[in-house]
Amino acid sequence: MSKLVQPRVLKGFRDFLPETEINRKDIQAILEKTFQSFGMVPIDTPVLEYTEVLLGKGSGETDKQIYRFNDHGERDVAMRFDLTVPFARFMAAHINELYLPFKRYHISKVWRGENTQRGRYREFTQCDFDIVGVDTPEADFEILSIMHASMAAMGIPDIHIHISHRGIFNSFLEKLDISEKTAEILRIVDKLSKIGEDKVLEMLEEVSDSKKAAQILEYIGAEGDFDQTLTKLEDLCGGPSPGSERLRMVRQMMVDCGIADLFVLNPSITRGLDYYTGIVYETFLDKLPGIGSVCSGGRYNNLASIYSKTEMPGVGSSIGLDRLLAALEELGTVKDKKSVTDAVIINMDENLKSHYFVIASKLREAGINCEIYLETKKMKNQFTFAERKNIKYAVICGEDEYKEGKITLKDLNKRENYNMISIEESVKKIRETI
Amino acid sequence: MSKLVQPRVLKGFRDFLPETEINRKDIQAILEKTFQSFGMVPIDTPVLEYTEVLLGKGSGETDKQIYRFNDHGERDVAMRFDLTVPFARFMAAHINELYLPFKRYHISKVWRGENTQRGRYREFTQCDFDIVGVDTPEADFEILSIMHASMAAMGIPDIHIHISHRGIFNSFLEKLDISEKTAEILRIVDKLSKIGEDKVLEMLEEVSDSKKAAQILEYIGAEGDFDQTLTKLEDLCGGPSPGSERLRMVRQMMVDCGIADLFVLNPSITRGLDYYTGIVYETFLDKLPGIGSVCSGGRYNNLASIYSKTEMPGVGSSIGLDRLLAALEELGTVKDKKSVTDAVIINMDENLKSHYFVIASKLREAGINCEIYLETKKMKNQFTFAERKNIKYAVICGEDEYKEGKITLKDLNKRENYNMISIEESVKKIRETI
Repeated sequence: MSKLVQPRVLKGFRDFLPETEINRKDIQAILEKTFQSFGMVPIDTPVLEYTEVLLGKGSGETDKQIYRFNDHGERDVAMRFDLTVPFARFMAAHINELYLPFKRYHISKVWRGENTQRGRYREFTQCDFDIVGVDTPEADFEILSIMHASMAAMGIPDIHIHISHRGIFNSFLEKLDISEKTAEILRIVDKLSKIGEDKVLEMLEEVSDSKKAAQILEYIGAEGDFDQTLTKLEDLCGGPSPGSERLRMVRQMMVDCGIADLFVLNPSITRGLDYYTGIVYETFLDKLPGIGSVCSGGRYNNLASIYSKTEMPGVGSSIGLDRLLAALEELGTVKDKKSVTDAVIINMDENLKSHYFVIASKLREAGINCEIYLETKKMKNQFTFAERKNIKYAVICGEDEYKEGKITLKDLNKRENYNMISIEESVKKIRETI
Repeated sequence: MSKLVQPRVLKGFRDFLPETEINRKDIQAILEKTFQSFGMVPIDTPVLEYTEVLLGKGSGETDKQIYRFNDHGERDVAMRFDLTVPFARFMAAHINELYLPFKRYHISKVWRGENTQRGRYREFTQCDFDIVGVDTPEADFEILSIMHASMAAMGIPDIHIHISHRGIFNSFLEKLDISEKTAEILRIVDKLSKIGEDKVLEMLEEVSDSKKAAQILEYIGAEGDFDQTLTKLEDLCGGPSPGSERLRMVRQMMVDCGIADLFVLNPSITRGLDYYTGIVYETFLDKLPGIGSVCSGGRYNNLASIYSKTEMPGVGSSIGLDRLLAALEELGTVKDKKSVTDAVIINMDENLKSHYFVIASKLREAGINCEIYLETKKMKNQFTFAERKNIKYAVICGEDEYKEGKITLKDLNKRENYNMISIEESVKKIRETI
């Protein structure tokens, strides 16, 4: 016999066993239903793309993490590292087949060869939703509404969405006359929650000077209620700007729709990525601040510009499914031990095999998920199987039941038998509890 | 301005636009529901695996087609080319966490660098369902039942499942004393429908002799009703074998369950792959024989043997989603122009923006999918958008409606208005037709 191959998975990659995968699918179904209730439509794009297509707008860090290789035709290809860049490429490619505004969602896996020591995965699932073709407060607010509705639909309690605006920050940096350092400053400020104020100040001093560094820290540290903070930011910038006016309009919608309490104006939110141009946001769970943002995004008005001369303003957000599921588990919101099977048909009589399949068909026609135990084995084994698979009912049909055209239904939780009842009666019984 | 990057996709890869993706998702939902009604549970595995894990049981052809490269840690990795091999690895890795029999489904993409000239894709979706842990006629029949139920649930008319048995064919080859050529012969016979009898005969003569080649052709050409053909095969093998007895038992279940008409015993079905050991099958549409099999599989009793010493007999089948959807389109079974949005809220008054979001919330709470047109534009543009997105209703709320706490509902198909009605009334109207 040849040497066995070890059945291992790559570091940072995971198998999902049924218990987990059922939960993942449930959450995805809830999200899809929510997205569709807002008129969002699904699309899909390839996992592999030309590397030049994917790296057009990536940050330097992403370049290093991307899974990249030459294919059979010696093309330079790579696996997508997010769903945003492929979406920009998609919009540029299909603009003539689509209508605007175009609202799409996309739930799928992405890959990054990240350092796994920080509990990060190299294969993970993102749930993106974006609106392309309009640059209006309505569109900005709609994405925020979908974030709120998604969290509510998943039953996630006590969230806060921290909001900021790149345009306001940009006008502030212009006033300080350090616009040319914007990208570096954004990346430093984005690290605030990870490395703390002192370290951020130090790094800011390196790219500007100590006075400006202190001013930037004052800006990003502005606190208070939404309106107060917004006014303070305007003051720091030397007056209102299109960005601050937009944010005020979005704020008004939050108030009018009665969901203003959910939102915090937090100028330290910048999102590291270059491509944001307007509102940006991150979502935190009050009870689990440590896990970081579970849903982030913002407005990007030039994303497709590397592929197309058509202007396509966009705004969107992305839910990190893996992080979110970890949070739900920690919060105890996930109901465990779900079963897909309502009833197992006990396989006890060799001569009745076909009959068991007939019973199963009838139950399925009545909407009951059921399965036949697939070999004639001791009852004990079959009940153990049912217990392991968390099945509530057993259908028993021996010679006596068969002769009468009946079955015996066993409630495996209550350990109660309903003897010699018809299939119709058992359907009714099973339906009562599922 | 820098040169634009062309927004192209790789040859053999595709974007899915909403119309198509909605259909794909619908079909997947139908399949999942069917699989679950048989007690099948979902799992997921990584897209990337160690190459040695994936190539253990691949055929030579697969080796050449696999997307393989060295990752950042110089590991030899590859993208999965099917869902069967990762499943075998999964079973070996998790056998102690699972129960047997284990019934799983897995719907996901796989990648093969195939020649695209034959209309093949390099990225495609498979829907696999398997039962591991039992080698019984019940398990064999259950997979066939799921194939039948899946096709019925998708509304695919006029299918036939062509069945054969590797064990019977093996005992036939033993009788001819050319067992050592089994793998080559299987691959030749598998090409019958593509290259025709003459060419198959010629190739068989090359690996055996002209007498044996003719005998093999007689075996695979056996025709007639199921029972006659089975008896003929037994005769050609010199009598019954465990394989033929198993097939007879499965046949009895087909008859008892009233679905025998669906199945054809066709000894030319062998499936090219080495790993099958028992029953094998392919599914053809009567009206579209040219597209080939849309659902194929069989019994493999040693699949996980390269990873584990634990014996894990299995049986399963795989639906090629892309081929199936092409078939459904050609048959006209796919309903086109589905819309996820039931109603669009016309954005006509700058001062009522927030109010439009409030109306939308109320409609959503009542289960209506709706969206606000995301900027205040000419009505004409907004109606064109609704038409393009195939939305049935428009909700109109100007100053008059707002003052009365009402809306005007417009049926965009019938071009009928329901003036000044309440939101509750409009929910009722919309519900009548969706």
